[in-house]
Amino acid sequence: MRAVHYLGDRRLDVAAVEPASPGPGQVRIDVAYTGICGTDLHVLAGHMDSRVTFPAVMGHEMSGRIAEIGDDVQGWAIGDAVTVIPIVSCGDCPACHAGNGHICHNIVFLGIDADGAMQGSWTVPGDTLVRLPDRMGLDVGALVEPLAVAVHDVERAGVARGDRVLVIGGGPVGLLIAHVATHYGGEVLLSEPSQVRRAMAEETGIRTVDPQAHEVPAFVETWTGGAGADVAIEVSGSEAGVTSAVASLKVRGRLALVGVHTEPRPMDLFRFFWRELDLVGARLYTRSDYETAVALIEDGNVDVARLISRIEPMDNAHDAFEALESGEVMKVLIDCQR
Amino acid sequence: MRAVHYLGDRRLDVAAVEPASPGPGQVRIDVAYTGICGTDLHVLAGHMDSRVTFPAVMGHEMSGRIAEIGDDVQGWAIGDAVTVIPIVSCGDCPACHAGNGHICHNIVFLGIDADGAMQGSWTVPGDTLVRLPDRMGLDVGALVEPLAVAVHDVERAGVARGDRVLVIGGGPVGLLIAHVATHYGGEVLLSEPSQVRRAMAEETGIRTVDPQAHEVPAFVETWTGGAGADVAIEVSGSEAGVTSAVASLKVRGRLALVGVHTEPRPMDLFRFFWRELDLVGARLYTRSDYETAVALIEDGNVDVARLISRIEPMDNAHDAFEALESGEVMKVLIDCQR
Repeated sequence: MRAVHYLGDRRLDVAAVEPASPGPGQVRIDVAYTGICGTDLHVLAGHMDSRVTFPAVMGHEMSGRIAEIGDDVQGWAIGDAVTVIPIVSCGDCPACHAGNGHICHNIVFLGIDADGAMQGSWTVPGDTLVRLPDRMGLDVGALVEPLAVAVHDVERAGVARGDRVLVIGGGPVGLLIAHVATHYGGEVLLSEPSQVRRAMAEETGIRTVDPQAHEVPAFVETWTGGAGADVAIEVSGSEAGVTSAVASLKVRGRLALVGVHTEPRPMDLFRFFWRELDLVGARLYTRSDYETAVALIEDGNVDVARLISRIEPMDNAHDAFEALESGEVMKVLIDCQR
Repeated sequence: MRAVHYLGDRRLDVAAVEPASPGPGQVRIDVAYTGICGTDLHVLAGHMDSRVTFPAVMGHEMSGRIAEIGDDVQGWAIGDAVTVIPIVSCGDCPACHAGNGHICHNIVFLGIDADGAMQGSWTVPGDTLVRLPDRMGLDVGALVEPLAVAVHDVERAGVARGDRVLVIGGGPVGLLIAHVATHYGGEVLLSEPSQVRRAMAEETGIRTVDPQAHEVPAFVETWTGGAGADVAIEVSGSEAGVTSAVASLKVRGRLALVGVHTEPRPMDLFRFFWRELDLVGARLYTRSDYETAVALIEDGNVDVARLISRIEPMDNAHDAFEALESGEVMKVLIDCQR
């Protein structure tokens, strides 16, 4: 089998490696597809060099079939189609004790803190497995993880039927959030500066606004008859995105913060006070979010297949990363058997 | 009767004025006491000159007895002891329609946007009245309003039994919040730089920390066994206060924002994401908060009497404002009949 290795300095290499036999409690998966995530772009850019161990195997959005089962793993059979929740929690920190193991203080995130899925075969703890329905294509199955992110974000944002929902940032996660929020009964407006991404969103039925052509808060005020948005979901990670979201919310409106803001942002806290706004951080997902994501795909409520722009063999990984960095494609999968 | 007039440029004057007869739906109150609030200090400093009409009568923390009742006001008798919810809502904006009239888009706040209580007699809409129990002293009754603020803040913060609650800022509102949060079952730590205010808080049984002598987040981490505070309530209005609050919260902790931040603050949004923190703005109060405040005093659960540092006649109003500005007194009341 082969693996895509990150070597630092933006270098990727494809190398032959030995599959790791599963120890007790572990399972080895023959990986079908691994999606490239925004987080992987951060890894390639060197932002997470302090967390990775070289040569590092990235990737945490995946699908595959069970190839080998270690001792003490129940309920699974060779050939089962699965995806993985790439979180290993310590079980013994204050967050774990409070039932928030998905944001454990000592989290090991597979694909950053330990080897990920961009390889022909991946050995993981058995309790990270999530079953994929037999009739779900494995290409689509690799999108369960980003859809679980979107489910988590929309639930943290508390989207309810009839809410006017402003989503800021129209990349893959923003677009999935827009679709999940629509399914939850929200009326969605997606703010995205890229014409290409706006067009992709409009093709899937999402209303968009160009923040370079409109003042988004004024646009939202008109849209909502002077009230402001019930919910804003900030996915862009930009200062302008946060400022725009805060200025667009109604009295007692709620902002969910999904984008990664690596530096402090100037926030209009007076408006939080004046309008009694609410802000919630949303990170990763729980098993329940995964199960909801699988059901949303299976029941045809969110069509993730049309988000797949390209499927590339491992040898094209570097090109695939660069295509995603350009922002002109939506989702790119690596075929881990080619 | 006489009124304390704000004339701009930090000038106060006491002048003879005619009582205003109550029109339909109105009531005239003989004012007993009016407390000086941090907001009044902002008015004196000229920060709200665009909202006030000169000569302006400040004051919205008050007590008194009904002196005259206009047509179409039911349920009240001459001599009834009352305080006032100093909010007139429009009833027709999106906030009012959604049941959030206390933060109406077109709010008229009595004591800023219209004349307030720092006068011998005050005429207000009958539906702003709140009954004070017969056995409650009118001096204490003037503290129902700030206590209602504290009730609103603690309820927005969602303080539950057993929560470790960090309160930042030990002025009158911060101290009342500390007491209400304690009554709601919280274990409270109050961060306040003034030695005088810390001593006042300690005298009333509140544990304090000096943020100039300790790194508050590290102090809280030790206090909470590495978890972080369940709740932080930011009352100081300072950048350092917000930064400290955010850095002190546990995974899924909640920050209630009570202080007025007149300029944008740099916020560590990454931590909001990483720990899935929650932030809520808290402003003013509802009738329910007033009723809770009256009950807390009546049942002896919060002893507001000991917060009263001085009671001064109208002629000493300017000195009283300056004493409060110095931060070396807690609550100062103006006796509106002297």
